[in-house]
This record gives sequence, C-alpha cells and structure tokens, in this order.
Amino acid sequence: MGISIDNGQLRPRIALAIGDPAGASPELTAKLLADHEVTSAGQILVIGDRRVLDEGARVARVTLDIDRVTALDAVPAVHDRPVLLDLGHLDPRDIPIGEISKAGGSFTLENFKTALSLAMAEKVDVVTFTPFNKAAMRLAHPSYEDEIVFISEMLKFDGIASEFNILPDLWNARVTSHVPLSGVAALITKDNILRNLKLTDDAMRDAGFSAPRIAVAGLNPHAGDGGNFGREEIDVIEPAVREAKAAGIICEGPIPSDTVFVRARKGEFDGVLTMYHDQGQIAMKLVGFDLGVTMLGGFPVPFLTPAHGSAYDIAGKGIANPGASRAALLLAAKMGVKRIMAKSAA
Amino acid sequence: MGISIDNGQLRPRIALAIGDPAGASPELTAKLLADHEVTSAGQILVIGDRRVLDEGARVARVTLDIDRVTALDAVPAVHDRPVLLDLGHLDPRDIPIGEISKAGGSFTLENFKTALSLAMAEKVDVVTFTPFNKAAMRLAHPSYEDEIVFISEMLKFDGIASEFNILPDLWNARVTSHVPLSGVAALITKDNILRNLKLTDDAMRDAGFSAPRIAVAGLNPHAGDGGNFGREEIDVIEPAVREAKAAGIICEGPIPSDTVFVRARKGEFDGVLTMYHDQGQIAMKLVGFDLGVTMLGGFPVPFLTPAHGSAYDIAGKGIANPGASRAALLLAAKMGVKRIMAKSAA
Repeated sequence: MGISIDNGQLRPRIALAIGDPAGASPELTAKLLADHEVTSAGQILVIGDRRVLDEGARVARVTLDIDRVTALDAVPAVHDRPVLLDLGHLDPRDIPIGEISKAGGSFTLENFKTALSLAMAEKVDVVTFTPFNKAAMRLAHPSYEDEIVFISEMLKFDGIASEFNILPDLWNARVTSHVPLSGVAALITKDNILRNLKLTDDAMRDAGFSAPRIAVAGLNPHAGDGGNFGREEIDVIEPAVREAKAAGIICEGPIPSDTVFVRARKGEFDGVLTMYHDQGQIAMKLVGFDLGVTMLGGFPVPFLTPAHGSAYDIAGKGIANPGASRAALLLAAKMGVKRIMAKSAA
Repeated sequence: MGISIDNGQLRPRIALAIGDPAGASPELTAKLLADHEVTSAGQILVIGDRRVLDEGARVARVTLDIDRVTALDAVPAVHDRPVLLDLGHLDPRDIPIGEISKAGGSFTLENFKTALSLAMAEKVDVVTFTPFNKAAMRLAHPSYEDEIVFISEMLKFDGIASEFNILPDLWNARVTSHVPLSGVAALITKDNILRNLKLTDDAMRDAGFSAPRIAVAGLNPHAGDGGNFGREEIDVIEPAVREAKAAGIICEGPIPSDTVFVRARKGEFDGVLTMYHDQGQIAMKLVGFDLGVTMLGGFPVPFLTPAHGSAYDIAGKGIANPGASRAALLLAAKMGVKRIMAKSAA
C-alpha cells in the first residue's frame, strides 16, 4: 500500500500536478515543496517538468530538496522526500509568461492526465494541483469543459461528483452547478438533494469533522414564504431534509439563502448546501473564498486545488500567496489519511 | 409649498409613521426626535399616538420637545420643531410588548395609511417609518402583502416601483423580487432592465450621487460563460446595458453575480442592479445590510425605512440601535430636498 508513517502520523500519497506554467503555478508548487509542514504531511509526488519546477523555485527564491524520476514505474512505493515525476515535456523558455498558450495548456493537461492514471492505478491516495487555466487547456484540447467532466471521462466514472468550496470553518456544496438559472428548479429533486447531502456529509467527515452540521438553503426568495413564492421548499427540500435527518445526517433547512450564510458565519453551521451555483458563490467570494480550497468529491479519490486562478497578472514576480495552495495540500493529507484508514478497516 | 429653510438648508416635510408598537419602533422614533441632526434636516411630522411615543421616550430615556395636533388639517404648513399627529388610537398598555397582536397591526396600518394620505395631498415630500411587523399587520388586514403592493393600491399607482437596499457606499436594486426562482428568467426582459436602470439612476441622483456608477449583474453562472450556461446575457442584458449607456446612464455589465459585489465593495461601482431577489440579498446581508436603509422608489414620493425588523427580542429595553433609522431619515431629508428643487425647477 505504500504506507509511510512520520512521528506516528500516516503520510498519504499525494499527487501534485503542476498547473498552468504561464501563471503562478510553478512558483506555488516550489513554495509548497519548500514547506516542511506540507512535505511532512504526505508523500508528495510532483508531476511536471524539472525545468519548469526549477524556474518556479528561482522565482519563489527557494531551494528544493527533491528526488527525480522520469518514468511512472520508477516512482518508489514509499518515499520520505518529495519526488518529481519529470515528464520532460516543457522548457519554460518556450512559452510566454502571463499569456494563454497551447503549449502551456498541453503541459497542464499532460500533468493532470498522469495524476489521473496514478489515481486509477491506486498509486496515490489523493490528487492535488496548482491552478489551471481552462482557456489554455482548451487550446490544447478543445472539448475540455471543466475538471469534473474531464475526470469523469478519464476515470470512466458514472457516479455523482460535486464541487466543494472550502474555507477553514465553512464548507459550501451545491445541488446544481453550471446550468442556466432557468433550468435550476427542474433539477431540484429529492434524490439530487439527498445524494448531495450524503456526499457533503461523507466529505466533511473525511476532512475531520466528527459531526458536521449542514444547513440546506431554500430555492426561492424567503425560502418560498410558506408557498407564496414557489413550492419547492414544501414539496421537495423539506422532505429531503427530513429523510436525510432520519439517515443520521445532521442537517437543517430549508433556510432562506440570504440568511443562511450569515448564520453559518456566526458558527451555527459547518457547511451549507446551496441549490444553485451563485447562491453559494456570491457568499463565498464575499467572505474571502479566494483564499479557500476547491475540492472535487465523490470520485474514487478526492481532488483538491486552491480556489484562486492562475494569477497571470503576478506571474514570475515571486509574490504569489501560497496560503490557499498550502491549505489544499494539508486538507488533502488529512483526507488521504482518512481514506487509508477506511480502506484498512474495510 | 411649506418651505422651511434652516441655515440656508431647505428642510423638506418628512412624514414619520411609528411602526409596530410591540417592538423597537416607539423607542427608535423617540431617539430620532431627540436627535438634533435629524430634526434640523427636515420638518418632521410624526404619526401615531402620544401615549405610544411617550412610552418610547421613557424606554429610550430621552425628553421630547415636540408639538402635538390631533387632526390632519391642524398640521401647520411650516414648522420648525417636530409635530406629532396624535391619532389617539392606542394605549400601549393594551398590547403585549414583544408579541404579534391585531391591535399592534391596526395601529401600524393606520399610521401608514395616514402618511399615505398626506403624501397624496402633497402635504409631505417624503415618507419614512420605523419597522413594521407584517404578521401583525396581516391580523388587522389579511390581504396585506408588502409595502409596495399596499402603497400602489392606496395611491392608485400603476407605474413601476422598486425596492432599493442601501448601504452608505453601496446601493442594490433588482429587476425581479418576490417571484419563484423558476419564474425569474421569463421576467428578464430588456424593458424591465431598462426601467429599473432608469429608476436606480434617478433615485441615486436624488440621493446625492452626481454620476452614479451602476453595475448590472448577469443572470446565469459565470454570466452565462459566453452562452454555454444560458443566453439571457447575450440576448437581453447586454443590449439593455448598451441602450442605457446610450441614454446617458453610467452602467456596466452583465457582470457575473459572484464577483460583482466583490468589485463594488472595492469601490468600482456605487450600485448594483441584480436580476433576482437573493442575488442581491445574499450579498447585502453578508456585508451588514441590517444597518442599512430600505427605500421604495418610483412612487410620487420616496419611502424610506431602516432595513432591520421590529426587533421584538429587545423591545422595551432601551438598547435598540437607532443607526439605520437615523440613516433612513437623513437620506429621506436629502431626497426630499432634491424633489423640492426639481419641482421648483419644473
């Protein structure tokens, strides 16, 4: 299983795919590898190109202590120090910094695919990546829609996966995501809500919450105001919450979406399940989600990445804040440990 | 016209209807009347009952210097000091503090109706009120829906009125309000957006902005992502913004609703026009709208009230924060002055 234990702490195997090479990703990757708390939390396998990582280290002004292999089967089963899987596929001098390029997109996509292969082969417990640039990835692979769709295709996964937005004391998951607002109501079904509540509860427990308290947002203004402005709360959400409670999930709702985050911020809830994309995103971005973590849950392994983008505007300057990337890696380590323990118990 | 000028400053005639008597409204009204900045900004005509106001002053621990009349036609055309129009319709000992009651609802409704009569007779330039309790009002008048509907009925007004949520440096107006989410998209028409942009621009200019910068939110996630998640941005919102710009309104959009408030908070915009209720309310409540002001615009006179509710939990304790009520009165005075000046110019 490739078990590594440091001071009695299980160290899960974490794939770390370098993201878009024209942005802050190489610098952020280097900063993570120079951070002892990160490198001691897991067995980190960086996927990318040595020259790109070296350039990131130069920009970040850090010295890296890392082993290097050039083929998948050369990755040691257990390793104390971080290992770089050097795919030798990009010389950073070949792409313009701070600009979208097909070569940059290809590099990102290849790293991501390799991480997915490692996950499929159960050679890693969790996958992380520094920020992607979807526009660059689409130049290399025009049908690239988003991470969830791509992972599902690569893993031939036909279950339910969902995106979580995570601040240290506030999780947000959603029942619907990238659909037109006019199509949201039709997707608010009891099954969809229940599935997402279960997914959220599982993920939060994996992340260390022993009894996560989940608020469920209403769909309509004032949560429908007793049926005056829509009946989904009465006909769908309330029954779903009741059923989830009966199944042992600690949840409450439907709660009007304009007060649910105010209450969560006051400490009443650990997470909020919203009905649609902007219901959660408006709130999360206002309370500082750019420093948060995005987690894709529901897949055989969890995927974690900083919530912010590839930061072309500050690329190459050494000033990128590694806080969100660090939070992503540390949460990945925590979730990896839980998964190893769950597997051992199974 | 009842013009009063204090130190060269026009003092508009402001009706101040006492709100729900079981909550903080009597105390808040008394605090406003004891506030020199408020009473010197306008000619304030309080509408209620002397005994309720006296009880409010006792709770607020203030002494009131106020004239009293008992009939509409006894209200002086011009007055320096605040005047109470004493309807003699409620002894506060007859209602339980902190509880919904029909008598409390009747009191509120009667004050509000009287303020509306004064507005219709052009005896006031602007109407304000301390917080209502709609549930109590419904006991007295079961068909009471909300302020906009009630005012429209009373004034036989068939134009477009809209609710504005106002923080000192951030206004929010919306194209749709109390409708089910599933019905929102059908109401997003170019005409509706244009009408609301005009209303917002007018109201903000009345409130003192010489060149209000208005952001227009998108409807769909990522403002439709170039048509991938909905076409309303391309087909409706963008053309409306273009037309509004051509008409001299300083506006920009459609902007994704999860970043528009972040940008407004950074100072890029003075106001945000949202497409639906919670799009704005989620953001406004998170950034402290409970201390803000609600304005109903589009009617022959503007209506202003603090954004918070009747605060039954702290009624009678003297601890109600008058900040939002004070902001409502001062903004009312400002808007009243503009209206007087516009009328004189007409």
